[in-house]
Amino acid sequence: MGSLEQRLAALEDREAIRELIASYGPAADAGDAQAVAGLWAENGCYHIAGFGEARGHTAIAALIEGASHQALLADGCAHVLGPVAITLAGNSALARGHSLVLRWSGAGFEVHRVAANRWELARRPGGWRVMRRDNALLQGEAAARALLSPPAAPHQP
Amino acid sequence: MGSLEQRLAALEDREAIRELIASYGPAADAGDAQAVAGLWAENGCYHIAGFGEARGHTAIAALIEGASHQALLADGCAHVLGPVAITLAGNSALARGHSLVLRWSGAGFEVHRVAANRWELARRPGGWRVMRRDNALLQGEAAARALLSPPAAPHQP
Amino acid sequence: MGSLEQRLAALEDREAIRELIASYGPAADAGDAQAVAGLWAENGCYHIAGFGEARGHTAIAALIEGASHQALLADGCAHVLGPVAITLAGNSALARGHSLVLRWSGAGFEVHRVAANRWELARRPGGWRVMRRDNALLQGEAAARALLSPPAAPHQP
Repeated sequence: MGSLEQRLAALEDREAIRELIASYGPAADAGDAQAVAGLWAENGCYHIAGFGEARGHTAIAALIEGASHQALLADGCAHVLGPVAITLAGNSALARGHSLVLRWSGAGFEVHRVAANRWELARRPGGWRVMRRDNALLQGEAAARALLSPPAAPHQP
Repeated sequence: MGSLEQRLAALEDREAIRELIASYGPAADAGDAQAVAGLWAENGCYHIAGFGEARGHTAIAALIEGASHQALLADGCAHVLGPVAITLAGNSALARGHSLVLRWSGAGFEVHRVAANRWELARRPGGWRVMRRDNALLQGEAAARALLSPPAAPHQP
Repeated sequence: MGSLEQRLAALEDREAIRELIASYGPAADAGDAQAVAGLWAENGCYHIAGFGEARGHTAIAALIEGASHQALLADGCAHVLGPVAITLAGNSALARGHSLVLRWSGAGFEVHRVAANRWELARRPGGWRVMRRDNALLQGEAAARALLSPPAAPHQP
């Protein structure tokens, strides 16, 4: 079980990771490019299957400031994440979960994107940060489903 | 870092706030007006942009008992919230996140509302309660996006 | 308030239950039948209103391996849960929340199912497990809404 301090630290780690990931959607939909980028480590990577990869704060901020995201904000959009399953391993962690992008069409709200997400996280001097986020649309491809696969070790809640 | 007790109390506060907000959707869709109202402080406020403001338990319960919400329940609906980013500050807190309302049309499920939410919370004698919830549809208006903006201090997970 | 150890243990229980339920969607959409089944106790039950009941690991795994779920995976799908309101009571617990199934139609993402869920959980030798999950579509039926009703005791965050 570990000492009280170790058990508390494990809960704090899980809470910090959940908070980090929960901050993505609000920051993205507020259009706050610096807040979004700051969720990643300085050399962190955001890989979107079929779209490309942004590495580092400048490149990740550019996704938010770019034409595609700005058009979504102008239409009206929501980047809504599902709950994440978190596997802690010392100073690194894995989180798995869904993300939705909803969009106002002018006549109604549409489900614009439904994706699988795999987050690799690391404890950094300033706290937990995203080292890599893989995002892939769930349109039947096995590679997208595989992002959601539990790690090899059996589930130990 | 603070003492073990201080660190534990911070986690308990975050957990109580998450639980409070997670209780909204189930209570609203169960049609339990008293349970919904009880999430707010006695003088708490629920402000829905373009619709109006309910202040106090009686007024908030009346939203659930009113014709608009009752019609949604009769059709079939789900008030589903996204994860909340929580900023604690002693006896008050701020939470930011999305909310969706899904509705059964008789032929399929429609995305009826997609909104930004900003929750101002306070520790009260009976536990954490909502002092004010601001809700605004994400249809492109800057004021709705601003509800999701991170507080001024930088992110410190 | 209880001792530090008791308070910590209560947070650990809530975290384990949240993690257990958060693991359902990723495991279901990864098509990992054993991981899904393992969230339930060996004699646990998954009851889907209007569809039937699966009891035990073999029967629950068969839901994932069955034609209906496999067709959803081949189309592209996401089983996304909302946040759960958790009521702890010693070695058992109740969680209430929504679930969505989104489906890629080939032309767009559709909201395929919107359901109420009531999870009865128990602490087992290997950790918290699902004893019974009730799932019912929110299409206006009072019985589905009732799954989301708060337990009789008043909300005590």
